[in-house]
Amino acid sequence: MTLPRSPLAPEHFPDLPMIKGARFAAAAAGVKYQGRTDVMLAVLDPGSVMAGVFTRSATRSSNVLDCQAKIGADSDAGAAIIVNSGNSNAFTGKAGDGSVAAICQAVAEATGLPETRVFTSSTGVIGERLPHDRITGKVGELVATLDETALKPAAEAIMTTDTFPKGASAAVEIDGQTVNIAGFAKGSGMVAPDMATMLVYIFTDAKVARADLQALVSGINARSFNCITVDSDTSTSDTLLMAATGASGVDVTGHDAFAKAMEAVFLDLAHQVVRDGEGASKFVTINVTGAANDADARTHALAIANSPLVKTAIAGEDPNWGRIVMAIGKSGAAADRDLLSIRFGDVLVAESGWVADSYREEDGAALMKEQEIDITVDLGLGQGCSTVWTCDLTHQYISINADYRS
Amino acid sequence: MTLPRSPLAPEHFPDLPMIKGARFAAAAAGVKYQGRTDVMLAVLDPGSVMAGVFTRSATRSSNVLDCQAKIGADSDAGAAIIVNSGNSNAFTGKAGDGSVAAICQAVAEATGLPETRVFTSSTGVIGERLPHDRITGKVGELVATLDETALKPAAEAIMTTDTFPKGASAAVEIDGQTVNIAGFAKGSGMVAPDMATMLVYIFTDAKVARADLQALVSGINARSFNCITVDSDTSTSDTLLMAATGASGVDVTGHDAFAKAMEAVFLDLAHQVVRDGEGASKFVTINVTGAANDADARTHALAIANSPLVKTAIAGEDPNWGRIVMAIGKSGAAADRDLLSIRFGDVLVAESGWVADSYREEDGAALMKEQEIDITVDLGLGQGCSTVWTCDLTHQYISINADYRS
Repeated sequence: MTLPRSPLAPEHFPDLPMIKGARFAAAAAGVKYQGRTDVMLAVLDPGSVMAGVFTRSATRSSNVLDCQAKIGADSDAGAAIIVNSGNSNAFTGKAGDGSVAAICQAVAEATGLPETRVFTSSTGVIGERLPHDRITGKVGELVATLDETALKPAAEAIMTTDTFPKGASAAVEIDGQTVNIAGFAKGSGMVAPDMATMLVYIFTDAKVARADLQALVSGINARSFNCITVDSDTSTSDTLLMAATGASGVDVTGHDAFAKAMEAVFLDLAHQVVRDGEGASKFVTINVTGAANDADARTHALAIANSPLVKTAIAGEDPNWGRIVMAIGKSGAAADRDLLSIRFGDVLVAESGWVADSYREEDGAALMKEQEIDITVDLGLGQGCSTVWTCDLTHQYISINADYRS
Repeated sequence: MTLPRSPLAPEHFPDLPMIKGARFAAAAAGVKYQGRTDVMLAVLDPGSVMAGVFTRSATRSSNVLDCQAKIGADSDAGAAIIVNSGNSNAFTGKAGDGSVAAICQAVAEATGLPETRVFTSSTGVIGERLPHDRITGKVGELVATLDETALKPAAEAIMTTDTFPKGASAAVEIDGQTVNIAGFAKGSGMVAPDMATMLVYIFTDAKVARADLQALVSGINARSFNCITVDSDTSTSDTLLMAATGASGVDVTGHDAFAKAMEAVFLDLAHQVVRDGEGASKFVTINVTGAANDADARTHALAIANSPLVKTAIAGEDPNWGRIVMAIGKSGAAADRDLLSIRFGDVLVAESGWVADSYREEDGAALMKEQEIDITVDLGLGQGCSTVWTCDLTHQYISINADYRS
């Protein structure tokens, strides 16, 4: 099954800057796919610090559990990240733990790093034993071909049914010196019986303490990757790792400009994941304001974003605000029918418990024909707000997930 | 748009018994549909008691709010239920409240009942003003044609895009006398921009105190209608009303046989709603056992039942147990990867954190070809259990909700 490139894809992969102290390589190990790369290795110089966030799934993969056990430790030894596509090594029992250990050992031997500094991710089919020998057999080749410029090949090697590779970067001037941030992500394509997974790797040459980097990653992740949804289903493999090599020599501690640049990269990649959502034909921004608090706003926003009836209405270019009312009503968070208002783009659609006097169906219908759709709901209750990004639910989603068999 | 009869529909509408003290009528008021009935009236003799449960949506309709205000009162006056299809009178602001008042007034005048004993439901499009004059103009005809045998016409009049009318009954012998229970329901078809709604009306000639009937209704509802899901979207109109006329003269207080018969009727109708789920091609029972507690079991069962990836796998007849592992993992309730087991029908699929040694893919694939599919998950943690019924997610769901416009 070959999927067409998403209509929401960017025109081309961006030119990513080199990140001093970080080198990349990709190889074709034949884990599952033939005729393409499927393993990427990133090696970070000594002095690099690592931070990460991971799926909270109770059935997360061996790789995720291993990363979580390692991520909080300080080390001056450098680090490596090795990622394969084609097999998620999730729900593979004790054998899955063994696969992770074998890969870490092979990378440690080839790089001279301690095993505790090797981080792994796997993405693809669930429940099938990972043929890790194919990966360990390629580690020598990967280490031999490490290159500071190879971010795009690395981004391509981690794709499963993504229809385009996803990269983003930002540069920030601090004390007259340039700090670079660059990263790549995969998500959320699928070949049955795989499931949507998201893997994200971001690199910077900034100098920053590990705890500070982790705080930035956790905070920005909550406003970016944790605010996207394609189909409400959570992967057992979701992983975001960020490495700061310090090789620029620029200490970014306390510099807001750095945090802002990081957030721009996170958001760019998060939006690209939505743009490659299975079967997506519309990129949808859900803004909720005026909620009793931020948590309620997020609950409402996710209820709207995940509602099959809202998502199919958007696919059908139907300005069906009744389904948004329904989603708000069912979310469980506070709402008052007579206080809430709904806008499509700038068009006021509903207020005071009913359709707005000024609303004309043809205005709503015209907006729904756009490829990018903004829906704003104000609850009229307080100051809570939240933004969530999602896509529509189309026949192609059913085709990808039901019609094609593994 | 004419929908084909669901492949999961029963062969025919059941022969429902007469319920002494309850009379029914249906009429064609032209609220929205042409050439069919769209209003039903049920009138209950003096001495009848009423009980009900309603959607918890924060944006529920004027009808639901009015029913909730009336349902808890005692009265010897009798009661009436009037229901229209074609317009839900939801999110219609103060005008919606006025429509409910006008209909209640008309029924009260024609029947001699107080307005506080008239209960209304509306189902259909959201956010359009209900043309209630068309309904009040038919009240005289409805009252004039009331008939103890007219349950089927009543069931047909409340259909929206249901592909078959839904009825069920039970009889129970108590102290040598027969008590009858009969009811009908609608749900969950849709024509854009309507949304899935569920309306249920159940009648018995049993003699029972109002508070006791309410307790039975609430308890059994929690195990029947509150355990079904088609697409995770909750209607603004969901209503279940039950009337006990007492006309059999048999006091059922404390008789388990009556409660069991009630539960059989509730479950039968609830299952019929799932069988008419939009686009449904499979009837799916999700059993969760061994959870830490019943609430956790329900959380897991609903996470599985509402997962688009699980539902599309079932539509594709794919024994994709990895997606069930995913749904358990994301649900937020307690789970241990290495303790849970999954069965399709009687076939053990996964245990000990991996696919079962005895599992053969062809056994799972054969089971998935059935029209009725049982999925059982044991968490291995405790005694909590829950059963939820759902259907699959097919192209027809997208067609119904995206391709056809209002």
